[in-house]
Amino acid sequence: MSEGLNEFGRIARFFAPLAEREAGALGLTDDAALIECEAGRQIVVTTDALVAGGHFLPDDPPDMVARKALRVNISDLAAMGAVPFGYTLVTALPRDLRGEPGDAWLERFAAGLKLDQEEFGLSLLGGDTISTPGPLLISVTAFGKVPTGKAVTRAGARPGDLVFLSGSLGDGALGLRVLQGTLKGLSRPHAEALADRYRLPRPRVTLGPKLIGLASAMMDVSDGLVGDLAHIAEVSGVGAEIRVQNLPLSPAVFAAIEHDKRIVESVLTGGDDYELLFTAPSARRGAVLALAETAGVPVTEIGRIHARGGVQVLDLAGEPMTLGAAGYLHF
Amino acid sequence: MSEGLNEFGRIARFFAPLAEREAGALGLTDDAALIECEAGRQIVVTTDALVAGGHFLPDDPPDMVARKALRVNISDLAAMGAVPFGYTLVTALPRDLRGEPGDAWLERFAAGLKLDQEEFGLSLLGGDTISTPGPLLISVTAFGKVPTGKAVTRAGARPGDLVFLSGSLGDGALGLRVLQGTLKGLSRPHAEALADRYRLPRPRVTLGPKLIGLASAMMDVSDGLVGDLAHIAEVSGVGAEIRVQNLPLSPAVFAAIEHDKRIVESVLTGGDDYELLFTAPSARRGAVLALAETAGVPVTEIGRIHARGGVQVLDLAGEPMTLGAAGYLHF
Repeated sequence: MSEGLNEFGRIARFFAPLAEREAGALGLTDDAALIECEAGRQIVVTTDALVAGGHFLPDDPPDMVARKALRVNISDLAAMGAVPFGYTLVTALPRDLRGEPGDAWLERFAAGLKLDQEEFGLSLLGGDTISTPGPLLISVTAFGKVPTGKAVTRAGARPGDLVFLSGSLGDGALGLRVLQGTLKGLSRPHAEALADRYRLPRPRVTLGPKLIGLASAMMDVSDGLVGDLAHIAEVSGVGAEIRVQNLPLSPAVFAAIEHDKRIVESVLTGGDDYELLFTAPSARRGAVLALAETAGVPVTEIGRIHARGGVQVLDLAGEPMTLGAAGYLHF
Repeated sequence: MSEGLNEFGRIARFFAPLAEREAGALGLTDDAALIECEAGRQIVVTTDALVAGGHFLPDDPPDMVARKALRVNISDLAAMGAVPFGYTLVTALPRDLRGEPGDAWLERFAAGLKLDQEEFGLSLLGGDTISTPGPLLISVTAFGKVPTGKAVTRAGARPGDLVFLSGSLGDGALGLRVLQGTLKGLSRPHAEALADRYRLPRPRVTLGPKLIGLASAMMDVSDGLVGDLAHIAEVSGVGAEIRVQNLPLSPAVFAAIEHDKRIVESVLTGGDDYELLFTAPSARRGAVLALAETAGVPVTEIGRIHARGGVQVLDLAGEPMTLGAAGYLHF
């Protein structure tokens, strides 16, 4: 049995082809990569790492792991209104991915990166591949561009603004429970739809940049709606109120809640949705909804910003709910 | 016993102060950071990850781990001729760094980052902190600026060029052996000097940017002189010859070789020196040496570029040496 490729062989075979279109990547043969500046644009940079057993399941297909690692970062760029163009990649490979099994794994991993590079219009710029005695870990730093001074941050929400959410809520968190085998009673198509949403986030790249000038604050929902909205509220120095009855739910999540009402809490505080959560002045409601239609992305008004009061969730009767956890905490 | 800080508490306490001076970091409260573009400048980006037991020792002091993680990246920027300005940071913390022990560790880790931010003039821009069931892993993506089109790559070495090396060779690799207890017979000051060089690289930030326009190719020596020079030769499409008698050795490395002649091989192929290895036309020899004097960094002429022939190392008698390994391979 062959020993497989060494580090440089792996770079040449699996990663260099992903950097071909970007001259600044220097064919991945150099110490660093070059990013061109453009008049009137700022570079937006974000970094997110994923570890097996924490952010994906150890037996998840390598192409899906690659795409998830890219997409959670692309989602952060979209949430600033930025258009992605490149990324650097750190792969820490465990012992069982040395030699030929590792080469086979990397081939599928690189195929996943290639798919999403094409879908989202970005290129590999550089990276580092190391060995670890621990589990597989993937760290991506992604780059986008935004018109100077126009990035949408979390800090701009004002009292009276409306709170909007793209797509639907809870699919990612319930998808994880499906894959862990702790969510029963769903039809197979529903279970599969949820698992797919957990494995493969859909960053809202068409919507995010279009919200520049309309959204007063924005972020992506990665740690859970309530906790994430609390971040916007805190950074903006305001409070917020959302109504459970207004939350956009997919048929699968709706069915899961029908089966067990307590699941609504997972929907409110679970992570991994990667939808855009944003605020906009109430006078711009029509513009927001028209834009969503143009972008082909469902957008739902789910609440309102107040001058103070933290984040309140109102139940079907309009009463404040008490939640066990204000979002997923990593520690 | 208290549980210690949660993720957001840790960001606020340990990391946000490191981002204070850089408006584009947005106080680390947002999805991403903003990098300003500057007319006539390109952004240079590099990423390197370090794992406990691989790139540093598990019981290395946290401030030294932090500084090494920054410095290996800063060294890559210097090797392109870039001036560093910022970085993003991923910390994957093992189980024993949860709770209060983790807070205490992070406090010392952040103190190390702060020291080197001040020494090298860069700021934290963003990051991600995750938990891992594996060992501590630190991944840094560092950013610098370079005049557009002027970055020094590995691709420009031409036949007849001279090969230069900054500082001294072999200290990093022998320092690791000192710390592992596999290098005996050294005086205590020598052993400590070597260990210190392994733990704390000295990226050549004053020299690197000054070599723009002089050096035809450049990289930093992180994987071993012979293997790294082979990269320059391969990417430039040339061969190279270096002479052992010309290699710059510190008193500690010289003493180690005196004690055991076989150590010369570790010096030639060992990693972790983070010196600048560069080529320049022979007509520029005087300019290179004058510049080194101005920059206060020793620079030694160690060899010459040929039209072909791989990398040859000539021993004291001028005969080609055969080396066991052409540099440190990660796999």
